[in-house]
Amino acid sequence: MTDGLAPGTMETGLLTDLYQLTMACGYWKHGHAEREAVFHLTFRRAPFGGGYAIAGGLAPALDWLRGLRFGSDDLAYLATLRDRTGAALFPQGFLDYLGALRFTCTVDAMLEGTLAFAHEPLVRVRGPILQAQIVETALLAIINYQTLVATKAARVCQAARGAPVLEFGLRRAQGVDGALSGSRAAYIGGVAATSNVLAGKRFGIPVAGTHAHSWVMFHDGELEAFRAYADAMPGNCTLLVDTYDSLDGVRHAIAIGRELRAHGHELAGVRLDSGDLAHLSAEARRLLDDAGFPDAKIVASNDLDEHLIASIVDQGARIDSWGVGTKLVTCFDQPALGGVYKLGAHRDARGAWRDVLKLSEQPVKISNPGVLQVRRLRRDGWLTGDIIYDSERGLTARHAGSGGIDLYEIEDPNRPPVTPASDGGEDLLVTVLERGAPTAVDLSLASARTRAAAQLAQLSPRTKRFLNPQPHPVGLDRHVHDRKQQLIAEARARA
Amino acid sequence: MTDGLAPGTMETGLLTDLYQLTMACGYWKHGHAEREAVFHLTFRRAPFGGGYAIAGGLAPALDWLRGLRFGSDDLAYLATLRDRTGAALFPQGFLDYLGALRFTCTVDAMLEGTLAFAHEPLVRVRGPILQAQIVETALLAIINYQTLVATKAARVCQAARGAPVLEFGLRRAQGVDGALSGSRAAYIGGVAATSNVLAGKRFGIPVAGTHAHSWVMFHDGELEAFRAYADAMPGNCTLLVDTYDSLDGVRHAIAIGRELRAHGHELAGVRLDSGDLAHLSAEARRLLDDAGFPDAKIVASNDLDEHLIASIVDQGARIDSWGVGTKLVTCFDQPALGGVYKLGAHRDARGAWRDVLKLSEQPVKISNPGVLQVRRLRRDGWLTGDIIYDSERGLTARHAGSGGIDLYEIEDPNRPPVTPASDGGEDLLVTVLERGAPTAVDLSLASARTRAAAQLAQLSPRTKRFLNPQPHPVGLDRHVHDRKQQLIAEARARA
Repeated sequence: MTDGLAPGTMETGLLTDLYQLTMACGYWKHGHAEREAVFHLTFRRAPFGGGYAIAGGLAPALDWLRGLRFGSDDLAYLATLRDRTGAALFPQGFLDYLGALRFTCTVDAMLEGTLAFAHEPLVRVRGPILQAQIVETALLAIINYQTLVATKAARVCQAARGAPVLEFGLRRAQGVDGALSGSRAAYIGGVAATSNVLAGKRFGIPVAGTHAHSWVMFHDGELEAFRAYADAMPGNCTLLVDTYDSLDGVRHAIAIGRELRAHGHELAGVRLDSGDLAHLSAEARRLLDDAGFPDAKIVASNDLDEHLIASIVDQGARIDSWGVGTKLVTCFDQPALGGVYKLGAHRDARGAWRDVLKLSEQPVKISNPGVLQVRRLRRDGWLTGDIIYDSERGLTARHAGSGGIDLYEIEDPNRPPVTPASDGGEDLLVTVLERGAPTAVDLSLASARTRAAAQLAQLSPRTKRFLNPQPHPVGLDRHVHDRKQQLIAEARARA
Repeated sequence: MTDGLAPGTMETGLLTDLYQLTMACGYWKHGHAEREAVFHLTFRRAPFGGGYAIAGGLAPALDWLRGLRFGSDDLAYLATLRDRTGAALFPQGFLDYLGALRFTCTVDAMLEGTLAFAHEPLVRVRGPILQAQIVETALLAIINYQTLVATKAARVCQAARGAPVLEFGLRRAQGVDGALSGSRAAYIGGVAATSNVLAGKRFGIPVAGTHAHSWVMFHDGELEAFRAYADAMPGNCTLLVDTYDSLDGVRHAIAIGRELRAHGHELAGVRLDSGDLAHLSAEARRLLDDAGFPDAKIVASNDLDEHLIASIVDQGARIDSWGVGTKLVTCFDQPALGGVYKLGAHRDARGAWRDVLKLSEQPVKISNPGVLQVRRLRRDGWLTGDIIYDSERGLTARHAGSGGIDLYEIEDPNRPPVTPASDGGEDLLVTVLERGAPTAVDLSLASARTRAAAQLAQLSPRTKRFLNPQPHPVGLDRHVHDRKQQLIAEARARA
């Protein structure tokens, strides 16, 4: 493969946009390279028109950060770049600086599988501005995509109402790593297995699969093909029945099921891959039951997504598990999360924090200033609201009457604050790298998957529904709100 | 990185769907593993509602095929897999067979940058069925995505009418390799440069970039930020002007442009990244011209695609180059090509070719039988039609009157054939691996990019337009047509 990036490769540092390196060079030249800064990775809208996202991609992102290096090859390449005048784009001193660079920032992040909402920092990077800046692109590439897929997988599993979902996306994924990291993220979101054997090996995800149409086409007839497959794989015998006609295929599968039984094996089931899945599954179920195969499972596939599955389930389909490929792994209806990575604050020359924001005519695009943390509130086991606050200040706003915490609307700053009910809560950003060194936090894929399931169970069905979900209450702590309004006013006064 | 696949890794063989290996095991058990077969990789509809695609991904796909190996780690993993009864899914003899396997098929393919139309084989794999089958998934993953991106890039460049397009997609790509192979494919389709530094190093693509909003936010004001950037990078000075207000930003850029001139440098230009790009670019052009900077370029970015660029150009925008990210690299409006890989024929036990097809209720989904090749016809330098024929038979249908070649409609077999005008033509599938060994064909990225531009110049504007493109004439040679109808009738008679 020419297109992957290997563990231990020296090319990690180049996985970035050129402008990160030109800015880095600028910071270096002006003596600001080590100035402390904090950046937040956020998204502005939950994907797919939904009410939530599932954080994904942290563990591979941390692997990338810890492996950040500019090798001699990389520096030699950078030394070849020229500006408009034909001069070297980067001075040798800067390249030497990059060559010696190791990632020493502190990273606080939502653990994978955490429910995330618009405007919340998923990752906070704090440290020398040069380092915190140049990692932007790779962090976004890794976190954006895996968060998107984990979220799509959770939605597909929600539509399947507990029936196992199998991820079949490898052939349609956007590149090899799109497939691998897609399988990984889909598992966080709740899929039960993948067809992707390499993802099975690397990540310990269960793998599934039996045969394709070509197996049937190779043989002289469908019955002969099924018999040959059953003979070769008697203990893994889910037969694909739609090469010629789905219900004829079910009848052939039943015939082979009888032969299997005569040899002490059981037909695992059939797979439907085209046609009216609601109708065909009901007919297939009747044929299988009538023939004495009530335990044979019906798997369905064919360009499925959460909406199609929900509709097929609503029609009374008799489908035991779902194979979902293209539309899961490419997140077909919204193939990019659109996450951004914005400077929240930096220390000035005297060492004091200076909060900053990015202005925009659209309130949704104005960033939030400070060194941000998220407090998640609960009552009676249900999530009641998330408050974004400045961790250098702590939670500042306590409502006089109830003792609760006030939450200021982000996109409509003139709305009065609300006060979510709460009998407890916790901070969502956890320190995962302390000055570049890993902490003891459990980053395992299995924990991430469990976390996603547990948190989804605490989220209101009103927020989980696909159509017009009720937004989960997420807002700013009063200090951040006031600071933001002040900075907006100052910036507009300057303009 | 935990998510890439490295050159030389022993994990290539596992980059597949499990069902390829269970089928392979079946062929092995039944003694069919070495039976010769031919598969074709095709797509059923040109993407994005357009009239054409640009073939991409071949060189990395061939690297993968040549590197196909099952290492001892891989075999150890496969040995852990169990069927429903708890028995080993794969017998040791089969794993030993995989361990010794090398790819020895012959591959004929459209070279990268070739114009491709629906139903045409982009890749034909001919050799032992076990090998030809197990490579399906990786071939599809690589070719599908890079063909999709090359096509999207060609459309974006077409909309830009010759103005350079810069690919900025890394942060929004679906995984690291989605970004790298996306940058590669976008270059084939015609983009002039990428922000992706690693793609620049690996593939020799020009890289571009200057600074982000965070650079401006870090400094005490926009003017100070621009001055600091110009001081650090005087020969690479395209200033991003919309952190606070775009036209104020242009005025600040002009002020810095004057300071640069005083030091013997020139302002390269400004970048607009939000707002009404048609209007702002005209205003920015006027400000720059009036201030004596007629050569300063205006770069525009912000969620652009071919339709938005075409609309902005139509409004008289004064934009010199376009930065296109998310919507190019994720192919936002259609993030999967939907390519398929179907068995066309195999040799029977006596060594004779046996043509096969996959039936479907939808004519577009019925595969074409045989060992297929594509003849591209031209007249007066324009493409006039493509004929899919069986290369074991040659072109069989010559129209009595004109001496031309008859072309039978694929999706509507009852339509009478048409005869494209022709003063020449050539076969599109070129042998790129001969029994597993590379041939002397030029697979370079630079040639692919040149080829795409040359072929697009020969394609009718009626087929290139975005809205309701006129389909390019593509059809079956009479022999393939007749054989297909016969096989359909036989299959329906059996059902």
